[in-house]
Amino acid sequence: MNNEPHEPVTVVGLGRMGQALAGAFLKAGHPTTVWNRTASKADQLVAEGALLAPTVGDALKAGSLAIICVTDYEAMRELLGASDVDLAGTMLVNLTSGDSAQARETAHWAEQRGARYLDGAIMAVPPAIGTSEAVILHSGSRSDFETHRSTLDALGTLTYLGADHGLASLYDVAGLAMMWSILNAWLQGTAMLRTAGVDAATYAPFAQQIAAGVATWLPGYAEQIDNGSFPAEVSALETDARAMAHLIEESEAVGVNAELPRLLKAMADRSIAAGHGGEQYPVLIEEFSKPRND
Amino acid sequence: MNNEPHEPVTVVGLGRMGQALAGAFLKAGHPTTVWNRTASKADQLVAEGALLAPTVGDALKAGSLAIICVTDYEAMRELLGASDVDLAGTMLVNLTSGDSAQARETAHWAEQRGARYLDGAIMAVPPAIGTSEAVILHSGSRSDFETHRSTLDALGTLTYLGADHGLASLYDVAGLAMMWSILNAWLQGTAMLRTAGVDAATYAPFAQQIAAGVATWLPGYAEQIDNGSFPAEVSALETDARAMAHLIEESEAVGVNAELPRLLKAMADRSIAAGHGGEQYPVLIEEFSKPRND
Repeated sequence: MNNEPHEPVTVVGLGRMGQALAGAFLKAGHPTTVWNRTASKADQLVAEGALLAPTVGDALKAGSLAIICVTDYEAMRELLGASDVDLAGTMLVNLTSGDSAQARETAHWAEQRGARYLDGAIMAVPPAIGTSEAVILHSGSRSDFETHRSTLDALGTLTYLGADHGLASLYDVAGLAMMWSILNAWLQGTAMLRTAGVDAATYAPFAQQIAAGVATWLPGYAEQIDNGSFPAEVSALETDARAMAHLIEESEAVGVNAELPRLLKAMADRSIAAGHGGEQYPVLIEEFSKPRND
Repeated sequence: MNNEPHEPVTVVGLGRMGQALAGAFLKAGHPTTVWNRTASKADQLVAEGALLAPTVGDALKAGSLAIICVTDYEAMRELLGASDVDLAGTMLVNLTSGDSAQARETAHWAEQRGARYLDGAIMAVPPAIGTSEAVILHSGSRSDFETHRSTLDALGTLTYLGADHGLASLYDVAGLAMMWSILNAWLQGTAMLRTAGVDAATYAPFAQQIAAGVATWLPGYAEQIDNGSFPAEVSALETDARAMAHLIEESEAVGVNAELPRLLKAMADRSIAAGHGGEQYPVLIEEFSKPRND
């Protein structure tokens, strides 16, 4: 039944994201049951063919797959933990935002109540849902994921990460760190170049090319980390640190913010002080793996 | 004469980079004259066909294009400013590392002595010189660049940035900031995922995909900066800041370094405090454009 092209689905939580998820299922032809604390948020979806369930428990019974997309994990457990909700036999896909520990705890909590549980993270904004632009990460049982994959495909581009329910959340924030870091590095360069009268549009393609090029190095650099060996095949960390000093000086000389350059150098300097100046950049994994609270 | 396929060239400064540059010219068939304070550094190049000039002045006279690649701008001006060196009529391409102010001052200094002057920056390590991997940035007179372009092509992939001699240095450090930022964001994510037993090689392709995807946004985001208008078409900064808080919490919870996440959030928070929480991420250009020394 689960691999039918039109598996009946349930969406609990109709904020902007939940509405987008339900809308994508409807568009793909899935019988879609919805529930939200404020029922009026379902109006548009009902007009498009969704069924509005009177209670969460009824909503969960209506589909063979239930997407949960509420404010946070606490709200999710409060809602689904109510005495009149029977989770036994339900297949939950929790797309609520939270951290890896919450995902693991909630998986345990759901499984104790007889539910199957996949955790997920949506790397997209609501308008992208239902297009290939929307990357949706899943972690938990691979066979549960495979069973419902063709249904979940209606939401975007799916990625299965592994059995540990915490992975979707970890990959999600790791990906966001990459996103913001690229944007900030680009803003740093843009700010510097604007002092020389170069507009943002002129610099952007250059930054784009550098970013795309550096991205291709990551698998090779990853081998150094996994091998725990960091020979300076391309350049040594102490050479990088000297160039970082230039970046700081240039940022200060042209009068822009230098916090990002200073953090880059501070981490490299610490690794050099620990004796890694002659090794290659990925040796910094040791600094990134240690907490530091000053 | 300058556009002959085998324009005679001079390379002053035979550190690892200078040797690579001279070697690339020789390989491309250019009559190549070299000079270095320690003459023995020319031995290998002479064996490959280079001419070793007895003085810097003689070296500059031998080619119709002279590449300068010495320790720093000060060393360059000391060397070429000696009383027995006549710069009149020489075409200098200075690939010495330095900042934008030094490049502009040195252009003025060289032009006062009757030389033509292009500044340049090499975004590559010595072994890449002579391949398309070696990106070499140039700034200064476009006609000088175009006149010698076919000769300089022997060194790598050329980019001409504009008449302002400071541009090569600015683009160089901006590109490096992008490089280190991507590597650090990847290390942050790798450190987090390793706490869940995910090895670096497993995470790297995901990080690569995110980085390449985000890079494609930059030209669109640049339009917001150039227009000075930041409507939250995709998401609002205050939404990003909430997700940054998750990144910090998750980093701390899994016991890895959280300095990068904290800097991301600090800059966003400052922009939100300045009233930009409802605008889109590139509004942070205002924070990046201001010095901050605490």
